Parts: sequence; C-alpha cells; structure tokens
Amino acid sequence: MTVSKGLENVYVAETSISSIIDSTLKYVGYDINDLIEQQVSFEEVVYLLWHLRLPNKAELKKFNEEINENMAVSETIITSLRMQHHQKLHPMSVLRTTVSMLGVFDTEAELDDGESVYRKGIRLQAKMPTIVAAFSRIRRGLDPIPPKKELSVAANFLYMLTGEEADALSVEAMNKALVLHADHEFNASTFTARVCVATLSDVYSGVTAAIGALKGPLHGGANERVFDMLEEIDAQSSNVRDYIQYKIDNKQKIMGFGHRVYRNGDPRAKHLRVMSERLTKEKQEEKWYQLSVEVEQAVWELKHLRPNVDFYSASVYHALGIDVDLFTLVFSVSRVSGWLAHIFEQYRDNRLIRPRAIYVGPENRKFIPIEERL
Amino acid sequence: MTVSKGLENVYVAETSISSIIDSTLKYVGYDINDLIEQQVSFEEVVYLLWHLRLPNKAELKKFNEEINENMAVSETIITSLRMQHHQKLHPMSVLRTTVSMLGVFDTEAELDDGESVYRKGIRLQAKMPTIVAAFSRIRRGLDPIPPKKELSVAANFLYMLTGEEADALSVEAMNKALVLHADHEFNASTFTARVCVATLSDVYSGVTAAIGALKGPLHGGANERVFDMLEEIDAQSSNVRDYIQYKIDNKQKIMGFGHRVYRNGDPRAKHLRVMSERLTKEKQEEKWYQLSVEVEQAVWELKHLRPNVDFYSASVYHALGIDVDLFTLVFSVSRVSGWLAHIFEQYRDNRLIRPRAIYVGPENRKFIPIEERL
Repeated sequence: MTVSKGLENVYVAETSISSIIDSTLKYVGYDINDLIEQQVSFEEVVYLLWHLRLPNKAELKKFNEEINENMAVSETIITSLRMQHHQKLHPMSVLRTTVSMLGVFDTEAELDDGESVYRKGIRLQAKMPTIVAAFSRIRRGLDPIPPKKELSVAANFLYMLTGEEADALSVEAMNKALVLHADHEFNASTFTARVCVATLSDVYSGVTAAIGALKGPLHGGANERVFDMLEEIDAQSSNVRDYIQYKIDNKQKIMGFGHRVYRNGDPRAKHLRVMSERLTKEKQEEKWYQLSVEVEQAVWELKHLRPNVDFYSASVYHALGIDVDLFTLVFSVSRVSGWLAHIFEQYRDNRLIRPRAIYVGPENRKFIPIEERL
Repeated sequence: MTVSKGLENVYVAETSISSIIDSTLKYVGYDINDLIEQQVSFEEVVYLLWHLRLPNKAELKKFNEEINENMAVSETIITSLRMQHHQKLHPMSVLRTTVSMLGVFDTEAELDDGESVYRKGIRLQAKMPTIVAAFSRIRRGLDPIPPKKELSVAANFLYMLTGEEADALSVEAMNKALVLHADHEFNASTFTARVCVATLSDVYSGVTAAIGALKGPLHGGANERVFDMLEEIDAQSSNVRDYIQYKIDNKQKIMGFGHRVYRNGDPRAKHLRVMSERLTKEKQEEKWYQLSVEVEQAVWELKHLRPNVDFYSASVYHALGIDVDLFTLVFSVSRVSGWLAHIFEQYRDNRLIRPRAIYVGPENRKFIPIEERL
C-alpha cells in the first residue's frame, strides 16, 4: 500500500466547475483567456460558476441586484471588527472570524434546502468586499463606508476602501484580478471547503474553513510575500540576479513562481502582468512593475520557473492602494465565488469525505499505570 | 481514470497517532479498551497523542499545570460570547467563531516554531471547555464561572457548567467520554484540519476549520440527533420496533448506528453503554438508557447495524445535565486534542494537500458577449 503525499496528481472527485488541462484554465468550459479578453464582468463569472452557464442580460441584472441588496453588513459586524482591531494580528484571522460570525447571525444558517443555501451564497459573496474594506478603514482610524447600490463589485470594493469612486483603469484592474482568482479546480482552500461541508455542515463553516486554508503562505498568503520580496530588493538596492541567486544558493523559496499543476506557466500570470504594466504606469508606481519584470527574468534564467497568479497580482494590488497584509483578503473576495460553487456542487451529490491513513507508529503497547512509569 | 467517491478506503497519508485495524481503535499503539479499563485520565491521553508516549508522573504534573494555567478566557471573549447569544443560532457556530477569535488575540498566532505551535495547542486545549461552559451559562442568563486550578479537565468542565463540583461518577463519566472521543484517525474534521494547515496556515485556522466540519450531521452533529430521536420516541410513546421499521421503510437515516470504518461495531460504544447504564441510574434518568437499549435491539434485528460512539454518548451527556444542542461542543472539547496532534504531525513533515478533479462539465464553450446572449 502506497500513499501519494499531498494527494499530488490523485483525482479525488468529478467536477463541472473548472478545469486545468494542458496548462489551460477554463471556467465551465470557457477559456480564461477568452473571458479576460472579452472583458467579462466578475458578476458574470460568479453566475457562471454557480449556474454552470453565463447569464443573459435580464438574469445578470437580477443577479447584480441581489448582490447589491446584500452588500451592507450589520452594526454588530462593524462592532466586532472594531473590537478585533489591534496591532499584532493577521487580517486573515479577522476575516475568518467575521465570516464565521456572519453565520451566527444568519437566521437561515441551518436551513439546507437549495434556495436558502443559494441565498446564503449571495449574502456571503456580497458581504466579503464590504468586510475587507471596512476593516481596512477601521485600522486606519477611519469610519467604514457603506456600499453604493449602482456600482459593480470591483468598483464598490475600491469605493468602500477610499470613499471615492475609482477611475476606469483601476476598476478594470480590480475586475480582472477578481475574474482571474475566482476558481481554480481543487486547490487547497476549495478542497478544505469541500471536505468540511461533506459532513453536511453549513455554508459558513465551509467558507470559514477555506479562509483559514487560503491564509497559509503555501496558498493565498504567497502574494503578500511577493511584495515583501520586491520591497526587500528595493530597500537593499540589491542586484536582482544576485538576490535571486542568493535565495537559490540558500534553498529559500522564491514566492510567486512555479505551480504544481502548470508545467508551462500559469495562464493567469500574463494578464496580471499586462495589468501591472498599465496600472503602475498610470499610478506612477512603475518601479514595482519594472522590478517584477527583472525578478521574472532572473528566476527564469537561474531556475527556469515561470511566475504564477500571485506574482503580478502583488504590484497590481499595491498600485490600487491596498495594504500588503490585505492582499490575501482581496484574493478571498474573489475566491469565495469558487468556494461557494464547489460547496453547492458538493451538496448536490454529497458523500462524506473520510479517507484512511496508514499507521506507522508504535505497535501493541502495554499500558503501565502512571505510578509505575519511569 | 476512476475516483473513489468520498475517498472511501483510500489511504492518503501515514500517521503515528491512532489506528483502526480489525475494528480495534488504538491511540499510539494503546488499545482504547485498555486505556478505559485502566482509568486513564484525559490529560494523559492528550499528552500521549501529542508526544506519542504516555507521560511519567512529573511530566503529567507539569502538563496539568500548563493546561490549568491557560484555562481562563479574556473578558473580550466573554463579551463576544454575550454579543453572539440569540435565539436562532447553532452553538457550534458560536464555538467556531470564538475559537477563530482566540486566534485574532493570540499574539503568537503567526509564529511557526515548534515551541510556539505547542503553546498555542496548550491554550486551545485549555480554553475550549471554558468557552463551552461559559456559553452554556450565558444563554441561561447566568454569569460564567472561572475554572478552578486544582481540578481535572473533566471535573473543571462540569464545575464551570454548574458552579458546583460534580460527584465522582459524573467526573468519571465525563473523563471517559473525553478519552473515547479524543482521536479517530483521519475522520472528516481531522482531515479538514490537516488539509487546511498543509498550506502552512496557523493552528487556529486548522481548529476553526475542524469545528466547522464536526458541526455537520454526518459527523459530530450525529449525537444531538440521537437524543432528538430518543425524545421523539418518548414523546410519541411509540413502540420502538415500529418506529425503527417506519424509518427503514421511509429510507430515513437512523442516527448513531453504523460506521464506515468498523465492520464489527464501534469499540467505543460498549464503554459508553456501561457508563450510560451506571450514570442514568444514579441520576434517576434510567428511561433514556432503557430506551437506548430498546433502540439498539430493534436496529440490530431490523437492520443489522451496531451502535457507534454517538449513540450512548447522547444519554450520558443528557444525564450530565448538558443541553442537547451542546453535545457536539462537548465532542469538540475532546476532539480538539486529536486535531492538534494531527496538526502537529502535519507540520512536522508537511506537503501541500492539493488533489486533482476530473472535469465532467461542458467542453470548449465559445464566449458570446452579453448583448447577444439569449
């Protein structure tokens, strides 16, 4: 009996939501490259992941209204965010706690019919950007800003962060980042959510569990570490090639490069690279794009690894004025759409996910009462 | 390419913590039957699961002190519990939120060296009973009671629930229930925790995720439903055999029976059955034991299924004065020891758990702009 550590290349289920085949990422059969080039809105993508088809105009209008109507969060949630604000925390812990608390106050939390499950999905998707923006303001000593009904998710998120409606390029960048991060097959946080709800636990348990998983540096936490690296290179005025060579020599992981499921590069990276170039230019933050390109070249020459989705999202988020330690929360604002799609799919044809393990510890020990133990 | 739905009988990792072989459950090589018969304390079991050997007298003394010193929770946590109390929630949502919040306020939350990870384990193990007992009192309109330093975990938990030191039989029952629920190989909540922290996320993320999974009715939530069933039979004065036959005829699940990994019955059930008999007699609640025995007989005759750990724990918890909707929280107070053992083991030799899925949805869809969609 052998085990595949980390379930690498082990196929554990069937899915209709997304696929990664020959380094091409598709959402429900649509190539991510087409979706980006055709300027699809994040809301259309969420609808696609949940309904397994794109909405028509009337359906999208209704869907947008449902999202907009559910964006505001209660005073209790704002109070809890204020209560949680202190210096030493990681904001992902606050998001994890706050989403869990949404579940405490959702009077439909324990209902498991399809319609109430879907309504909980809408509420979670709608409130995530509001929570992240509110916390970003609270810790800067500012009051949270309620969402504006007529704005898209991308525009609303930027508006709630700053209190001003963002320019068109920023909204486009935010929208594209949301589209590109929405789903990614059985990634670690999505798999966590599915294992969790396969006990028939509720939607909030699944999303809370997934946030906890996304927080890890081997998963969503990587984009923060990319920007930390760029800042370190910038602060030390290091030669980029020397810096990367030093990391390789000291067996340090270079964040934002390589991906277990892509052999020929992450198809999401190039779109974020283009966006990073355009946006950093507009915001007079080109140095982060230029530094990123230098790092990409050095890593390719020295290690033959290509950038993944985390790499250029770092400079994009920075140029949008988002604090580094909120990068993974922005990732969550998008990925919650995929988590919910997978939770819905798991419920539709559920079976408890309960694997086995091979026991390799000591065998047949004889119990010795504590008085006689050495 | 085939998939094993629910990873049934798929071996996904090696472990040294517990094993289930030929219907025998062992903790680190010690048969659970021996541990129960030799009156092992829950604290010894926690030490065993974490250190992979039993403590000697001095080590156990130190360990008990570490647990006792960390049992109290902050005023912020109590405030948050009061804030979360309302009529329609499930208490497991409150526990999930509160444990996540412990992580927000633990200034060591982001440290990942072995010693700080262990200290976080101690804190979580110590505070779980305090949180559950405090919430039980708050929702009855009573003030929480701080832990007593000299009491065991079992005795302290019962003391914090009622404000009075419990009798010896109640403490023995609580201790045995804690010992029997401590670990169970790669059950769904433990696997959730391991998938979550394999991103190198923190201990609180792992335990929060696991609580979410345990909440599900196919996992920890089953013990509540056992008592709901006993109450239903009692209230309807049903003939037990007819009641079970009706359930079978209507393809309803009979909670507390059968287990995926045991063919010849769950070895934990008999110990809880003995405890249920002794304790319900002492507390003049025999009817719940007698009803349970009748249900066990009927299910055996009609469906050839044996009771699992959830079945007799229901009448034991009831006889201890615990509310039905807190049963799964009591399960968590014990199982957190196993979750932590598995989180420690995962960290010791980590690899991201990132399986694949077979895509079975629509292929190669062509994007049509929204204006042209029907």
